[in-house]
Amino acid sequence: MRTDGRKSDEMRAIKIEPNYIIHPEGSCLVEVGLTKVVCCASVEDKVPPFLKGTGQGWITAEYGMLPASTQQRSAREASRGRPSGRSQEIQRLIGRSLRSVVDTKLFPDKTVWIDCDVIQADGGTRCASITGAFVAMGLAFANLAGRRILKENPVKGRLAAVSVGIINGEKVLDLKYEEDSIAEVDMNVVMTGDGRYIEIQGTAEHEPFSKKDLDELLGLAAKGIDELIQAQKKVLQFAFD
Amino acid sequence: MRTDGRKSDEMRAIKIEPNYIIHPEGSCLVEVGLTKVVCCASVEDKVPPFLKGTGQGWITAEYGMLPASTQQRSAREASRGRPSGRSQEIQRLIGRSLRSVVDTKLFPDKTVWIDCDVIQADGGTRCASITGAFVAMGLAFANLAGRRILKENPVKGRLAAVSVGIINGEKVLDLKYEEDSIAEVDMNVVMTGDGRYIEIQGTAEHEPFSKKDLDELLGLAAKGIDELIQAQKKVLQFAFD
Amino acid sequence: MRTDGRKSDEMRAIKIEPNYIIHPEGSCLVEVGLTKVVCCASVEDKVPPFLKGTGQGWITAEYGMLPASTQQRSAREASRGRPSGRSQEIQRLIGRSLRSVVDTKLFPDKTVWIDCDVIQADGGTRCASITGAFVAMGLAFANLAGRRILKENPVKGRLAAVSVGIINGEKVLDLKYEEDSIAEVDMNVVMTGDGRYIEIQGTAEHEPFSKKDLDELLGLAAKGIDELIQAQKKVLQFAFD
Amino acid sequence: MRTDGRKSDEMRAIKIEPNYIIHPEGSCLVEVGLTKVVCCASVEDKVPPFLKGTGQGWITAEYGMLPASTQQRSAREASRGRPSGRSQEIQRLIGRSLRSVVDTKLFPDKTVWIDCDVIQADGGTRCASITGAFVAMGLAFANLAGRRILKENPVKGRLAAVSVGIINGEKVLDLKYEEDSIAEVDMNVVMTGDGRYIEIQGTAEHEPFSKKDLDELLGLAAKGIDELIQAQKKVLQFAFD
Amino acid sequence: MRTDGRKSDEMRAIKIEPNYIIHPEGSCLVEVGLTKVVCCASVEDKVPPFLKGTGQGWITAEYGMLPASTQQRSAREASRGRPSGRSQEIQRLIGRSLRSVVDTKLFPDKTVWIDCDVIQADGGTRCASITGAFVAMGLAFANLAGRRILKENPVKGRLAAVSVGIINGEKVLDLKYEEDSIAEVDMNVVMTGDGRYIEIQGTAEHEPFSKKDLDELLGLAAKGIDELIQAQKKVLQFAFD
Amino acid sequence: MRTDGRKSDEMRAIKIEPNYIIHPEGSCLVEVGLTKVVCCASVEDKVPPFLKGTGQGWITAEYGMLPASTQQRSAREASRGRPSGRSQEIQRLIGRSLRSVVDTKLFPDKTVWIDCDVIQADGGTRCASITGAFVAMGLAFANLAGRRILKENPVKGRLAAVSVGIINGEKVLDLKYEEDSIAEVDMNVVMTGDGRYIEIQGTAEHEPFSKKDLDELLGLAAKGIDELIQAQKKVLQFAFD
Repeated sequence: MRTDGRKSDEMRAIKIEPNYIIHPEGSCLVEVGLTKVVCCASVEDKVPPFLKGTGQGWITAEYGMLPASTQQRSAREASRGRPSGRSQEIQRLIGRSLRSVVDTKLFPDKTVWIDCDVIQADGGTRCASITGAFVAMGLAFANLAGRRILKENPVKGRLAAVSVGIINGEKVLDLKYEEDSIAEVDMNVVMTGDGRYIEIQGTAEHEPFSKKDLDELLGLAAKGIDELIQAQKKVLQFAFD
Repeated sequence: MRTDGRKSDEMRAIKIEPNYIIHPEGSCLVEVGLTKVVCCASVEDKVPPFLKGTGQGWITAEYGMLPASTQQRSAREASRGRPSGRSQEIQRLIGRSLRSVVDTKLFPDKTVWIDCDVIQADGGTRCASITGAFVAMGLAFANLAGRRILKENPVKGRLAAVSVGIINGEKVLDLKYEEDSIAEVDMNVVMTGDGRYIEIQGTAEHEPFSKKDLDELLGLAAKGIDELIQAQKKVLQFAFD
Repeated sequence: MRTDGRKSDEMRAIKIEPNYIIHPEGSCLVEVGLTKVVCCASVEDKVPPFLKGTGQGWITAEYGMLPASTQQRSAREASRGRPSGRSQEIQRLIGRSLRSVVDTKLFPDKTVWIDCDVIQADGGTRCASITGAFVAMGLAFANLAGRRILKENPVKGRLAAVSVGIINGEKVLDLKYEEDSIAEVDMNVVMTGDGRYIEIQGTAEHEPFSKKDLDELLGLAAKGIDELIQAQKKVLQFAFD
Repeated sequence: MRTDGRKSDEMRAIKIEPNYIIHPEGSCLVEVGLTKVVCCASVEDKVPPFLKGTGQGWITAEYGMLPASTQQRSAREASRGRPSGRSQEIQRLIGRSLRSVVDTKLFPDKTVWIDCDVIQADGGTRCASITGAFVAMGLAFANLAGRRILKENPVKGRLAAVSVGIINGEKVLDLKYEEDSIAEVDMNVVMTGDGRYIEIQGTAEHEPFSKKDLDELLGLAAKGIDELIQAQKKVLQFAFD
Repeated sequence: MRTDGRKSDEMRAIKIEPNYIIHPEGSCLVEVGLTKVVCCASVEDKVPPFLKGTGQGWITAEYGMLPASTQQRSAREASRGRPSGRSQEIQRLIGRSLRSVVDTKLFPDKTVWIDCDVIQADGGTRCASITGAFVAMGLAFANLAGRRILKENPVKGRLAAVSVGIINGEKVLDLKYEEDSIAEVDMNVVMTGDGRYIEIQGTAEHEPFSKKDLDELLGLAAKGIDELIQAQKKVLQFAFD
Repeated sequence: MRTDGRKSDEMRAIKIEPNYIIHPEGSCLVEVGLTKVVCCASVEDKVPPFLKGTGQGWITAEYGMLPASTQQRSAREASRGRPSGRSQEIQRLIGRSLRSVVDTKLFPDKTVWIDCDVIQADGGTRCASITGAFVAMGLAFANLAGRRILKENPVKGRLAAVSVGIINGEKVLDLKYEEDSIAEVDMNVVMTGDGRYIEIQGTAEHEPFSKKDLDELLGLAAKGIDELIQAQKKVLQFAFD
């Protein structure tokens, strides 16, 4: 039994509010338990220099945490003068994940800027960000399609992300902060709707883990991903579903 | 008649949701029309060097806009490497305003960190930030009082902030973004509950303004402040009210 | 009676030395009491991106204090890695003020860079900077006109700036540093030659102020502005005077 | 057959030159094919603030690439003003990996600074860095033990790191740069001497991968790790081997 | 004959105005021809960490140019985010030079901050800065001695600095800007009052120079130093003169 | 007798390994005693803005020290956020020296990027960097000539650099670190193959030095330069030798 009463393979409550912010082409507020992330997708008519003239588009992501989103207030990144190493690592992961399920040739000469801003954190913010970013991106492309700016949906598959880990020897799904901070193994898994992997990042915080541990953790992750993708489908439907 | 149908002396809808974020001692989500700001007050047991040993507390504020909060996405301040001049100007204003209505001797050796983060902008973000920051600060002090950490309420008076301006020669209250961007005169007024001024910042964007203009603008501001303070009172009551 | 023997409505000695620096198109050394500011206006044949092709010119300002200009030496801004929030706030104010009295269409595709560098500070440096910057800008435009680069004077009106405040309940004009640091209310007023306002920034440092206080302070400011504009006229004459 | 004639499960030549730099307590030059990394471990008698008084030591890592180490010269990180996101991600990985196989209580109040500097890059620099950093750290601890500063070896197990990936549908071990840049899946695996995992980072660059793919890739990785650990043993022997 | 009519061994007019700025312990305005530098020496009761507890004092220098001091306005260093390489090189030179003629044990636990700010530049700013910094430092020590804070004068010898160079094959003393920019060889010489060298920095800009060239240039420098030291003596007398 | 048994006019062992790094057009590892520097010359088809359209090429240099290259580990410059003043001073010196012996018109529209990275330091790193940078640059030009990209060798003369100094009153050649740190006078000399000077930087660390001292030091330097140029010739031959 976990401190919040969940079973080891049980997700926290998932809530996705689409179109949460009015200015960007797509947006949502994603909540996984007490973790809340505002995800926005803004489309710019311009690509980075290395893509000019290639007929491709680009997707890039930025991630931040509001100072008071964490248990102890953390220093504002703008005041520290640079995004932390952790933020940079996460924003690279978000961008890479989204790019793996889209065909960038279908939105030539456009950049989709993904902003994931954590307004309340209780563990799993990077996974919630990816899950929400997928929705914001999908809504933005739907918006462009509705305005006849795109002819074909660049999204070729669904994806979501979830954390799994080992705590006191037990494998658990969707760690909240107090679990995350004591886990022996912590793993973030980004998966597609058809059960394949986009990204696996597993870390032994205190004790190396075996192949058998890995297999069990990936099984738990698949269950969580399934629930997340169901939640996404309620607010974002694609022709290929 | 204004583009959103308001009369010249009419405020937009005001909404304050207290305790919006769980980690800081006080917080709220303040909405003035489409402008939405998350305001948090986090208390730290430490003061800046210049106050050490003086028996005083301190209040400091930081302000930021999420990149996708504006009509055109703006660059993330953490990525640019520093808060913009505008952000710094606003956070100095917020801190100064709040300090003017509290007795810092009543929370010795503590710093209240105010974070105002704009998640959606439609004009008047600095005024909404001040109005919301007052609530977040009040809730934080109430929290400390409830836990017997404070003996006396450090807040000595109420305050709120509103913008007024001149557009096409007409004086108007509470400018939204499209009004703000074409105003001849733009003024932000921070006032106390008893009708006195904490801060007046009036700027002629295109045409100098007369003493008579100033007097009329201040009259409009007083009306708006009154409504804002009523909205604050619904979520935050003090013994002195 | 004030510590330097002045009456409450008395300015400090004003001295403006035109063409103080040889390289920029216009410059002066402005002294108000012991406060000394070098003001330069340099003209560049280029405008910022947002004005390209609009047929307009631009005026921008930068402000700095030499480290040893203050009572206690302050850290060099270049060494700290960025202009302080205070410097940025002041340079935005200087630029905005000057732009409000010029017709930018009359110097198309040119940027006037204003540099205000405080070499000795005794209160009122931002007001002295604005007063001196107006002279430097005027001299620069006169220089361009003399060389037939401009056909018409872009300056449409005069302006100057002065501080007023309340100290121990008494309203005073032109605060020196030791007054400024103890004032209950501190107000900077930028006015035109015909008695209208460009910018009013009033701050209650310790005690809110009333409408009656405001009216009296603005009266004092008008008197000071008048003397400053007389001093400017001695070194800079316009056809419209 | 791979472009350099290797079989799919064949490592490049591994060379480790211990004590390559004289000043730090431990160091080596590690070469894997054409990739060359200088790894140093410097011991400082001081721990970061969060460990003060806990009786623990700390290990932290920094990673950099010399500008001319890459095919196209890359900008110097010191000139760009900050380590790149990639560098920060890698140095966090190196530090985390090493900390997982040591008992920090056995070198109380000391910090081991690991520096991994790539002088020539041909793919796999992060893996070579971890493999070499382990040697540098081990030599540093041996040095301290020899000087009777440590009583017990803090290293509790061996580790090394290797990359695996999928190229044109084929799984391969130890990717060189030209392979890495076209791989569909790229995975870095940090393993212990007893076949367990410290860190798995697998990324689908173009096409999601299946559980079966993952299992085969991990099999290849285990083979490579074994060879790397044999190479480490030639220059660094522990009592527990 | 040089463009300003000087002979090859002739200095420009030298003017030193002592106590130019009121706040620092010592200051002067030094003018060499059209080059004008404000030099200040501020004393702080604190030394850098590496000198704590050693009974020594410290002298450090900072150098800057106002943006409009140069022929073409140069970007403000605070806005660029760091002092330029050139500024850092010069401030290291100023500090090193001054430290070589003082006994730091005679002002224990104090740091003398030297600020050299160029308000108008016409070549030779680093040399004028050193010459003026020596005066500012001397006045600061005299000030401290007058207030009985120092018992003995820490200054053990005089120093000044001058530039020499080769232009069109001719050796000249004290180059102004238009000469400096076309010189084949440019040399800065810091010398003591008794004809010895503190620092020699000679650079062949276009053509290597011979030992005979060097000897002649050093001869010219000695003549210039002599005149500069006479000018210093008029405003600053020491017991040892 | 010096601590390492050398005579006062004796160089340490000189070793130059050409083509040490494979990616840049030219490179070497230069060792002078225990000081080891990797020098690379990378050619880019682009010049800085101020040279566009002039038909000239450019040479620029960057210098760095690996953190563990020094006796006490020094902070990584990328982590500190900027190259130190010392690094900037040295890289300016390297670039200036190399430019003085090449004809930039012979490699139009190309920039040669010199990177000098110290991997082990024992005094004299800037001189070793210059000596090695000359070799790397020469090899890069030879490489371009071999590929018929250049028609004529842009190198017009040889150069090398060495340090000399005064320790306990004795003049010595090629100071190692422990000598450098106690020297009364420290001088770096960059000379051409025909005995002329490119750069002389002499600094009295504790005691001013006389003309006679200078002459003797320059004599020692000439001897060292001669040996360095012999070592260069073994790995790099020019038609003009």
